Amino acid sequence: MNRKATVGVDIGGTNTAIGIVDAIGNVLVKDNIETPSHGDVDTYIVDLANAIKALIKSLKLVNPDIEIMGIGMGAPNGNYYNGTIEYAPNLSFKGVVHLVELLKEKFPELDYVALTNDANAAAIGEMIYGGAKDMKNFVMYTLGTGVGSGVVVNGDLVYGHDGFAGECGHTTLIPGGRSCGCGIPGHLEAYCSAPGMKRTAFEIMARDNAGDSLLADKSFKELNSKMIYDAAVKGDKVALEVFEQTGKWLGQGLADTVHHLSPEAIFIFGGPSAAGDYIFKPTKESLEAHLLPIFKNKIKVLPSQLKPGDAAIVGASALVWKEMEK
Amino acid sequence: MNRKATVGVDIGGTNTAIGIVDAIGNVLVKDNIETPSHGDVDTYIVDLANAIKALIKSLKLVNPDIEIMGIGMGAPNGNYYNGTIEYAPNLSFKGVVHLVELLKEKFPELDYVALTNDANAAAIGEMIYGGAKDMKNFVMYTLGTGVGSGVVVNGDLVYGHDGFAGECGHTTLIPGGRSCGCGIPGHLEAYCSAPGMKRTAFEIMARDNAGDSLLADKSFKELNSKMIYDAAVKGDKVALEVFEQTGKWLGQGLADTVHHLSPEAIFIFGGPSAAGDYIFKPTKESLEAHLLPIFKNKIKVLPSQLKPGDAAIVGASALVWKEMEK
Repeated sequence: MNRKATVGVDIGGTNTAIGIVDAIGNVLVKDNIETPSHGDVDTYIVDLANAIKALIKSLKLVNPDIEIMGIGMGAPNGNYYNGTIEYAPNLSFKGVVHLVELLKEKFPELDYVALTNDANAAAIGEMIYGGAKDMKNFVMYTLGTGVGSGVVVNGDLVYGHDGFAGECGHTTLIPGGRSCGCGIPGHLEAYCSAPGMKRTAFEIMARDNAGDSLLADKSFKELNSKMIYDAAVKGDKVALEVFEQTGKWLGQGLADTVHHLSPEAIFIFGGPSAAGDYIFKPTKESLEAHLLPIFKNKIKVLPSQLKPGDAAIVGASALVWKEMEK
Repeated sequence: MNRKATVGVDIGGTNTAIGIVDAIGNVLVKDNIETPSHGDVDTYIVDLANAIKALIKSLKLVNPDIEIMGIGMGAPNGNYYNGTIEYAPNLSFKGVVHLVELLKEKFPELDYVALTNDANAAAIGEMIYGGAKDMKNFVMYTLGTGVGSGVVVNGDLVYGHDGFAGECGHTTLIPGGRSCGCGIPGHLEAYCSAPGMKRTAFEIMARDNAGDSLLADKSFKELNSKMIYDAAVKGDKVALEVFEQTGKWLGQGLADTVHHLSPEAIFIFGGPSAAGDYIFKPTKESLEAHLLPIFKNKIKVLPSQLKPGDAAIVGASALVWKEMEK
């Protein structure tokens, strides 16, 4: 039996995850290599190509009929149009890296080698394998160290004029507000990312002099969103208010997205979204409060259906299926 | 010589403007009827159909070979998918009006009768006849009594899941800020519309006790954005600051739009945009200050190329050409 599969590559600051994914989103085999810390692109491409070839080889031992359709990659500042990573602040590569071109040289037999940013890849993954299979208009928010997003209109990912559309994490939530990693104050990412939640917890503890909070024995370096969740489950007031306030902020941001795009649904992916109703309930309430009447009680806010561990690989692999539709 | 033309209808709160527009955006003939103030849809449809038929007849006397391709309409809360006006706050019609269906009954010979909201119509007008002819990704902001917008991605207007996409005037600019006509505080419309500029002028006069301003002898009812412009040209400090501040706010809002959509250009249409550099310069500066590095110095902010007087008719008429492409 012939089985079609695609390679998914998720390029992160320190680690590159590689997997081969079947047509319904199962990861068949996977591996990791280091993303270089000293910006040596040529060595990296050789390592990456070798790792992919080794994975394909190992899979063919088990399943000789497997057919690899292409390679899809997700990376910060990945540009779909140019096949490049451009000035990514969290990667050691300098300037513009022609990733697709370089990798195609190593895989002349493959018709599809494509790149986009990680949040766009997640959105495509949701559309191909996940909860957005029957949706033509939706938006994906990825909450993690940063906040990314991918926008789908009429069944296609929106890349915009230059390939960089979907940076909703860098819309202004509070003018002149908290510093954001990008240098511009008040962005949604500074409030609704995992580190944003930590900052909120520290603000609340400072305001309330909350020495009795379960979070009060954690340093700023130590505290993370999982600890805030655990404290919320135990009824900790500070932790519960962090979720309330994060949801209020996120709902305001989602409303701006709705007013731009009128999507059927907004999917939330990533660490903080694992907190379920703690985050979804205040987010939905705040979203509704910020919507024009024509949008009220229409927009679904849903957790991503992609499995957390493999989502980035799976999302990147989905890019190949999307290319094949064209 | 056979000449193809389309009918454009602009439905406003008190007045409905009708025109026949040629293929390059010239208004050949035009007329006006009252939009009913008591919500009588059936009488209105009869009046509207009669006015359109009379216009076509008068045009055919001059140019017997004219061929009418269809009717395009722009209206507040006009829904493209359903052909309906839905709960429009500024119109006297109650609930949902099936405008396209009702008008088609009067024009069974026409293949194309379509409706969208007024700002979407302006965006399509810009794409068919105006400054966006060669653009695939752009956004139109219409500044007037309110702030509307139309979003174009990959050469198509974005209607979203339910037909109401492009309400950028109702994104939150200042959380908990000025009251907006929609009832939700802090929206861009409350700051960057013509009435928003008036409110800014009053805030500045109040703050600075500016009895020497050229605007200081105008009542709140009297003052309008044209007066602010005239005062700015004469060097009035209050008026100049109104434009500076409006540009700062508008630029912040446009940056949110860019971070969603990465357009090639944003077009500005309507009264305040006639002030040229007074509004465009601070808007562009603020936009750039709010953009991620990947978007900097890329996004054009341009005045609409549609003629102010006829733009709404012309925009609505363009909808027919867009339908014919499909």
